[in-house]
Amino acid sequence: MTERSSAPPAARTMLQQCLQARLQVTPAEEQSHAQFVQIDRGMVIYICFFKGATDDILPKMVSTLLNLRLCESDSGKMVSVLELPGNLLIVPQATLGGKVKGRAMQYHNNIGKEEGLRLYGAFVSLCEKELTAASAEVTVKHGTYGNRQVLKLDTNGPYTHLMEF
Amino acid sequence: MTERSSAPPAARTMLQQCLQARLQVTPAEEQSHAQFVQIDRGMVIYICFFKGATDDILPKMVSTLLNLRLCESDSGKMVSVLELPGNLLIVPQATLGGKVKGRAMQYHNNIGKEEGLRLYGAFVSLCEKELTAASAEVTVKHGTYGNRQVLKLDTNGPYTHLMEF
Repeated sequence: MTERSSAPPAARTMLQQCLQARLQVTPAEEQSHAQFVQIDRGMVIYICFFKGATDDILPKMVSTLLNLRLCESDSGKMVSVLELPGNLLIVPQATLGGKVKGRAMQYHNNIGKEEGLRLYGAFVSLCEKELTAASAEVTVKHGTYGNRQVLKLDTNGPYTHLMEF
Repeated sequence: MTERSSAPPAARTMLQQCLQARLQVTPAEEQSHAQFVQIDRGMVIYICFFKGATDDILPKMVSTLLNLRLCESDSGKMVSVLELPGNLLIVPQATLGGKVKGRAMQYHNNIGKEEGLRLYGAFVSLCEKELTAASAEVTVKHGTYGNRQVLKLDTNGPYTHLMEF
């Protein structure tokens, strides 16, 4: 269970382990096919920022997410995605910030689009820096902020975790 | 954002929309292949109960989850899974109850295995009753409590939501 502090969270992430994951980054248009990115074994990070989130939280977020022992190694030992080493797929997911109002979801606490896009870009860059420093064999892929995240996921158990910051 | 009340939640659910989802319900053994269940278009409910959860919360949980407008109809309108009508895949996911301790996850707030299994079964039954009453064309499938949830997911956008009860 996530800590209940008096302050609401600045960011919410959902983590799933994958054998392979594929995400659309550009939808199909009249003259062009849709474009996708794909990772093999690793972790999918769904991310949503709330109002009031600032750059200050990013280093701790990235360090926590990439160093948490959430991945099962071939020997069955739990290791971090950096230790595996595994790939990362980062999926912007504003719906994670939803709050029930009657039968509908509202997203009033979500960060504004421009600021969210900026934080998302900075988060992706930090992840790339950390993961690339740990291993040359793995890669960071990510979705296009604001787009529909057409996702295909293959797992040996998603091992879903919620992490708030 | 989920309401911050003074009481900790009794259950945590994660919802994802799918075009198709396949889940292992029996692992392969020496003499037998693995067995799977599969749904087409609909919603995946990952569910975890915390200590103190009782049957009292189940009717409201099921009613909320099945009536929330989380599904995009063919016309682009948001409707509930009952209205779509869509299929349901229920995935027991104890990891959702995890809490960070150093670099590892702890699950001390999760409900005991026996009580969790009972609540999970009752939750599945209630979902089956509600969904079947709404339409004969859709189905409820679910994972085996306590097993590894080998999952394959195909989406047109998972539209991930967190709901606590």
